[in-house]
Amino acid sequence: MAGSIFGKHFQISTWGESHGSALGVVIDGCPAGIEISKEDIQKDLDRRRPGKSPFSSPRKEKDEVEILSGVFEGKTTGTPISLIVYNTNQRSYDYSEISKLYRPGHADFTYDQKYGFRDYRGGGRSSGRETTARVAAGAIAKKILKEFNVDITAYTLSIGPIEIDKSKFDKKEILNNYLAMPDKDAAQAAADYLQKQMEKEDSSGGIIECVVTGLPSGVGEPVFEKLDAMLAKGIFSIGAVKGLEFGIGFEAAKKTGWENNDFFRYDEEGKITKLTNHAGGISGGISDGFPIVFRTAIKPTPSIHRMQQTINKNGQNVDIQVEGRHDPIIVPRAVIVVEAMTALTLVDYLFQRIFSRIDLIKKALQ
Amino acid sequence: MAGSIFGKHFQISTWGESHGSALGVVIDGCPAGIEISKEDIQKDLDRRRPGKSPFSSPRKEKDEVEILSGVFEGKTTGTPISLIVYNTNQRSYDYSEISKLYRPGHADFTYDQKYGFRDYRGGGRSSGRETTARVAAGAIAKKILKEFNVDITAYTLSIGPIEIDKSKFDKKEILNNYLAMPDKDAAQAAADYLQKQMEKEDSSGGIIECVVTGLPSGVGEPVFEKLDAMLAKGIFSIGAVKGLEFGIGFEAAKKTGWENNDFFRYDEEGKITKLTNHAGGISGGISDGFPIVFRTAIKPTPSIHRMQQTINKNGQNVDIQVEGRHDPIIVPRAVIVVEAMTALTLVDYLFQRIFSRIDLIKKALQ
Amino acid sequence: MAGSIFGKHFQISTWGESHGSALGVVIDGCPAGIEISKEDIQKDLDRRRPGKSPFSSPRKEKDEVEILSGVFEGKTTGTPISLIVYNTNQRSYDYSEISKLYRPGHADFTYDQKYGFRDYRGGGRSSGRETTARVAAGAIAKKILKEFNVDITAYTLSIGPIEIDKSKFDKKEILNNYLAMPDKDAAQAAADYLQKQMEKEDSSGGIIECVVTGLPSGVGEPVFEKLDAMLAKGIFSIGAVKGLEFGIGFEAAKKTGWENNDFFRYDEEGKITKLTNHAGGISGGISDGFPIVFRTAIKPTPSIHRMQQTINKNGQNVDIQVEGRHDPIIVPRAVIVVEAMTALTLVDYLFQRIFSRIDLIKKALQ
Amino acid sequence: MAGSIFGKHFQISTWGESHGSALGVVIDGCPAGIEISKEDIQKDLDRRRPGKSPFSSPRKEKDEVEILSGVFEGKTTGTPISLIVYNTNQRSYDYSEISKLYRPGHADFTYDQKYGFRDYRGGGRSSGRETTARVAAGAIAKKILKEFNVDITAYTLSIGPIEIDKSKFDKKEILNNYLAMPDKDAAQAAADYLQKQMEKEDSSGGIIECVVTGLPSGVGEPVFEKLDAMLAKGIFSIGAVKGLEFGIGFEAAKKTGWENNDFFRYDEEGKITKLTNHAGGISGGISDGFPIVFRTAIKPTPSIHRMQQTINKNGQNVDIQVEGRHDPIIVPRAVIVVEAMTALTLVDYLFQRIFSRIDLIKKALQ
Repeated sequence: MAGSIFGKHFQISTWGESHGSALGVVIDGCPAGIEISKEDIQKDLDRRRPGKSPFSSPRKEKDEVEILSGVFEGKTTGTPISLIVYNTNQRSYDYSEISKLYRPGHADFTYDQKYGFRDYRGGGRSSGRETTARVAAGAIAKKILKEFNVDITAYTLSIGPIEIDKSKFDKKEILNNYLAMPDKDAAQAAADYLQKQMEKEDSSGGIIECVVTGLPSGVGEPVFEKLDAMLAKGIFSIGAVKGLEFGIGFEAAKKTGWENNDFFRYDEEGKITKLTNHAGGISGGISDGFPIVFRTAIKPTPSIHRMQQTINKNGQNVDIQVEGRHDPIIVPRAVIVVEAMTALTLVDYLFQRIFSRIDLIKKALQ
Repeated sequence: MAGSIFGKHFQISTWGESHGSALGVVIDGCPAGIEISKEDIQKDLDRRRPGKSPFSSPRKEKDEVEILSGVFEGKTTGTPISLIVYNTNQRSYDYSEISKLYRPGHADFTYDQKYGFRDYRGGGRSSGRETTARVAAGAIAKKILKEFNVDITAYTLSIGPIEIDKSKFDKKEILNNYLAMPDKDAAQAAADYLQKQMEKEDSSGGIIECVVTGLPSGVGEPVFEKLDAMLAKGIFSIGAVKGLEFGIGFEAAKKTGWENNDFFRYDEEGKITKLTNHAGGISGGISDGFPIVFRTAIKPTPSIHRMQQTINKNGQNVDIQVEGRHDPIIVPRAVIVVEAMTALTLVDYLFQRIFSRIDLIKKALQ
Repeated sequence: MAGSIFGKHFQISTWGESHGSALGVVIDGCPAGIEISKEDIQKDLDRRRPGKSPFSSPRKEKDEVEILSGVFEGKTTGTPISLIVYNTNQRSYDYSEISKLYRPGHADFTYDQKYGFRDYRGGGRSSGRETTARVAAGAIAKKILKEFNVDITAYTLSIGPIEIDKSKFDKKEILNNYLAMPDKDAAQAAADYLQKQMEKEDSSGGIIECVVTGLPSGVGEPVFEKLDAMLAKGIFSIGAVKGLEFGIGFEAAKKTGWENNDFFRYDEEGKITKLTNHAGGISGGISDGFPIVFRTAIKPTPSIHRMQQTINKNGQNVDIQVEGRHDPIIVPRAVIVVEAMTALTLVDYLFQRIFSRIDLIKKALQ
Repeated sequence: MAGSIFGKHFQISTWGESHGSALGVVIDGCPAGIEISKEDIQKDLDRRRPGKSPFSSPRKEKDEVEILSGVFEGKTTGTPISLIVYNTNQRSYDYSEISKLYRPGHADFTYDQKYGFRDYRGGGRSSGRETTARVAAGAIAKKILKEFNVDITAYTLSIGPIEIDKSKFDKKEILNNYLAMPDKDAAQAAADYLQKQMEKEDSSGGIIECVVTGLPSGVGEPVFEKLDAMLAKGIFSIGAVKGLEFGIGFEAAKKTGWENNDFFRYDEEGKITKLTNHAGGISGGISDGFPIVFRTAIKPTPSIHRMQQTINKNGQNVDIQVEGRHDPIIVPRAVIVVEAMTALTLVDYLFQRIFSRIDLIKKALQ
C-alpha cells in the first residue's frame, strides 16, 4: 500500500536508499522453469551504472548483483527471487548543511512534509539510485518476454533542442554512444550541447522514445487497466518523468477523426495490417498486434552547481550551490529504466491475457 | 484483476454495456457519516449526459441515478454503495453489418482478438457510455474532497487548432458554454470550427486541462505509487486519452535545470512559496501543497460518417460510413470524466497519507 | 479495502442490506466464453432461500436473480457480470425499540462501535441475507469448476448433539431433507431435536462438512496463500462460523508423526495413491490431488425469542425477547454458502496454478 | 499474487530457502517515526531459533538479523524496511537420495506437482525455516501494537494428550520452560511424554492458544475481511496448522443460542461488559473490545526417523527413515510464529479502522 510494490503477477518489492548499505528487490510470482544467471541481470545494470561516461555522475559503483533466493540449479523455482546490490561508494560527505535546506527540484521538501523528517544522505529513498532495483527486476521480465518474442527498445529521442533524425536511425548506436541516441550525428551534437550546459554548471532535459515489437494482440484489460494506463503508471513512477504520449500523442488533439483513425486493410497475403499506427499499437486499452510506441519527457537533472534560490528550515531564504556528483543529464541512464518499467508492465498483462478466455485457461490446465 | 475495479481505499467496481439494461458502480470503502443525496450525484451525471448540445450525441438518456445500498437516513453507513443508471434509449438498430466489421479507431478489433467475440451493440463495454459509472462514483469522491477543501476544476483548453486565451480565463464559462471552455470567445471560435468538421462528416480532438487546489502537501507515495503515476493511470484509463503532462510537461525536456527548477522562498508572512510551479504541484511523486496542474490530449471521435477504409471478418477490404448517433467531439463531455478520475485518485491518496506517520495514526485512533 | 470484495482473478464485489431495495454482486474477471443462464444461478439461490421449511425463517422472498451485464447471446463476454436480487418482503416492522438495544450474539454493538451508527432494519449489512450475493456468484464459480471436473459437496454433519452415521451416507439425501443431512435417520432425529429447541424458543448450532473431488494437484500458493489459508479466509468470512479444521484437524494435535503422516504408495496400476488422507488433500498449502475435506462449526442462531439479558444505549440493563422471523438453525441454509465460498476460492487458485510454471503459460499463449 | 506477500497496509514480502544463503523480508508500509532497533527484532527471533532445547532441532543458527534499509537515526523513515538473516549452518548433507523420494507429511510431492521440480535441500521454501522472516516482521508489528496497548500472548495449551491446567496458569512460565507452557507441571509431564516419543523415533502434535488484550472495539471489516477471517488466513498460512477455533469454537456447534450468546451488562461503574466471552472477542467479524481468544491445532513434525512407507520418482514403493536434524514437536517454536501472524494481521486492521468513519479521518488529517 505504501507504494514500493509493483505488479500483479510478476510482483516486485523494492527497497534501499542511496547511502544505505545496499539496495534490492524481491520478485514474487516469477514462474518456475526459467533459466536465470547473474549475467542476465548484470548486463542491464551495467547500462544504468554511473561513472562510465563524461555525462554521468562520477560516483564509482560496480552495482554487482547477487541472487539470494528463488533460483536453484540455474532455474527459477517459482518462489521469491531476492536480488541485492551493495552500495560501496557512499562518499563520507558532510550532510549537515544539506539536511537543513530544500534543494530546488528535489523531493527534500515533500519528504519532510510527508514523513516529518528524512534520510538526507544523497536523497535517501528519493534518489535515482532507487531505480537499480527496478532495472534488476526488469532484466528478468525482459528475459521472460523474450521467450514470447517480445522486444523492447528504448532510446534517447532528444536532448534539449537536439533531436535524432529518424532517417538515420541506427539501432546499434543506442549502445554505442554515451547518450543512447540511435543517430551518431545527433549524439555528437547533443554531446556538444551538454558540454556547454556543464560549463554553465547547468543541466538538460530530453525525451525518450520506446518501441515494443512482437507483443500479440489482446494484451491489456478494458476500463481501468488499459495497457496504456498501466504503462503510464509504470513510466510516471520514474522520478524525472513529466509527460507521456502514445502513438502521435498530443498531435491527435489537433487532428480530425478521419486523419487520426488507423485504417485496417488485408495485405496481399491476407494478413491484417493498418495503413498507419497513429494509435501506437493500443486500441480501447488493448494491444492490436502492431508496435507499441510511446515518448516520455524527462526533466533536466535538478542538482546543479549553478547558484539557486531556496529556503532552509530556520525560516530563512538562502542561496544554494548543490555540491556532489551529479549527471548533467538523466536521459541516457533513464533509457534502461524505461525499458525495465515497460517490461515489468508487459509481462504482467501478457500473462493476464490468459484469463480473458476460458479456452486459453483450458489449454494451460489440460 | 480484470480491470473494472479502481482504487485502494475508496474502491469502485463498475459494470454495464452501452446497450445493456443498465450501468452501475459499487463503491466499497466509502467511510461512514457522509451526507449523500441523489442530487449530489445527478449534478455531475447531467454534465456528462448526451443530448444537451449540438455537439453531443442526440441519444436521449436521462441518466437518472438510483442509490440501492449503503446510505441510511441520508448518510453513508460505511458499507458498499450501489449506484445504478438504467439505459432507456438503446435504439433498436440493425447491428448485423457492424457486427462483422471493424470500425477504425474503435476497440472492435481488439475486443474480438482478446475475447474471441464481442457485444457489438453500440460498442458494448468499450463505449464511452461506460464512464457514466465513473462520474457517479466520482461525484461522491468530490463530495468527500470538498470536506477537506480540495477543489478540482477541469476544462477544455483547446479544440483542434482553437485554444483558450488564458488572460480571458473565466471559470463560470466552463458550465456556461457547450464546449466547457473558460473563455467565451474561444468557445465561439471552436463552435465554428466544429461546425465545419460536422459538415465534412468528420470530428475533432482537443486538450483538457485540470487544476487541483487545496490539496495538502505530503499526498502520494514514493516509488511506484507517486501521485502523478496514479493520476496517470486514472487519466489514461479514459478511452480517448493519448497524452498527459504535468506542470510544463514536454516543455521540460527542452529546459535546463536552472530554468526548470522551482525556487522556494518565504513570503513576507513567512509562508513557504515557490517562484514558479513548473513541476505542477508534485515533487518526487508527492504533492507540495501548490496547485496540481495537468493537461491531457483527447483524440477525435473515431465514429465519423465520412467514408473510411477497413476490413470485415470474411477477409475482405471494405469501405465504411459509421452510422448512428455520435459526438463530433469527445472533449466537452470528457471534462467531467477527467474530474471524476482525478477525484477518485486523490481521495485514495489523501486518505493514504495518514499511514505515512505513526503520529497521524495515533491522532485518529486516540 | 473495506472488505466487500473477494478474490483475485474471479473477483466479486457484493452490496446490499437486509431491508434495502435489493442485494447484488458484480463479478470482475469471469473469463469470456462460458455459457451462463439465469437458471444456473437460480438453482443455488433456491437452496439458500428462506420460507421453504419448518426450520427456516418464514420471510417470503422469491430471491429471483437478474443478470444486468456481462452476458451476451448466452455467453460471458469477459466483462463484469452484474447480478441483482430485489428484496420484496421487507416487513414494515417497528424498529424503534431494536434500534436502541444490542441483541446478544449479533453485530449490533460492534457496528455501532465501528461506524458510530447502524442500519438497524433486520441487521442491515450484517444480516445473513448478505450471503445471497455470495451464493449467486458462487453458482457461476461452480459452473466454471465443473468444466474442470471439480465437484464440491457440502452437507450438515451434525446438529446440536445429533451427528450423521457415515456408514449410511446417502448423497441424494442432502437435497431431499430439510436439514441437508446425507443420512435420513439422522435428519429425522435432528428434526425432533430442533422441534424441542423451538418449543423452548431457543436455537441450535451444528457442523458442516465439505468434500471437494476432482481438484488437480498443485493448486494453492506456498507461504501466505496456502490453499487451506485461503479457504479458511473464505469460510470464516461466513458470519456464524466459529471453527474450521482440515482432514483430521484437531485430532492431529493428539497424534504422533507416524500416526498422522499419509503414506504414499503406487497402486497396482502404477497410479500414485495415499494409504490415508489425514491431511485432507492439502500438503504445504498445495492440493495433492486427493479429496479436500474440511469441517466447520456453525454457532446457534443468535436471534431467539427466549428472554435474554442485554443493555440499551441509554445506559440501562434490560431484558430482550427478539421478535421477528428467525431460523432455529443456520446450518442447512449455510451449506450452500459454504459451497459458494469454497467455489469462489478454488476457481481463483485453480486459475492461479497456471502462473507457477512457464511451460503452462506458454501452452496457453501459443 | 504468488503468495509470499502478506498484508494491506503493513505489507511484508518474504523470501528465502532453508539452505540458501539467507532469508529475509521487506516491509512496505511501516509508518515513519517508530523507534526500531536490531534488539527489538532479535528478541523474537531468539524465541524461534533452533538448537536451544532438547526438543528442538540441533541445527546451529544464530539467526542474527540485519536492518538493511528504512531506519535512519534509530527511527523508521516510512520507506521499506529490509531485514536479512544469513544461513550459517546449512549442513553439507547428501541430498541425492531424498531428491528422488517424497517424504510423507512433507510438501515434497506437492511442490514437484506444482513446479515440475523442487529445491530439495532441507525442504527449500517449504521448510519451517521460512517463518524466520515472519517472526522478524512480526516483531516490528508487535512493537507498533504496543504503542496502542495491544498485547498478544500465545502459549502451548497441549502436547499430545497433556494439557495445561488453567487454574495453574502462570504467564512467566511461557518463556521459562522449553515447551512454552504456562503451567510448570504440565510442561514437565509433556517433556516426559515427548521423551518417550523421541525414544520411539516419533514426534507429537499439540495445540497453541493465543489471547489478545487491549484491542479496541471496531477492528475488522464486515463481509469478507472479518477479523476472524483475516486471522484465519494468517494462522492457516503457518505450515503445520490443521484447525482453528475462536472463543468456544467447535463447542458452539453443540450449544443452543441461549447458551452460546454473550449477554451484555453495564457494570457498577457503567462500563459495558459481557457476562461471558464465548465469541472470543469478535462479533460480526468486528472486535468487541473483549479479549480475542483462539486455539490452533498443530500437527506432529512429519520428519521422523521411524520407518515409513512412501514412493520414489522411479515408480517404486520404498521405505524411508528421514535423516537429519528435526524437532520432535513443532508447537513450542510455533508459538512465536502464531504471535507474529496475529500481530501482522492486527496492525493492518487496527490501521484500517480509521477508514470506517469520516470523523476519524478528519481527526488524523486536520
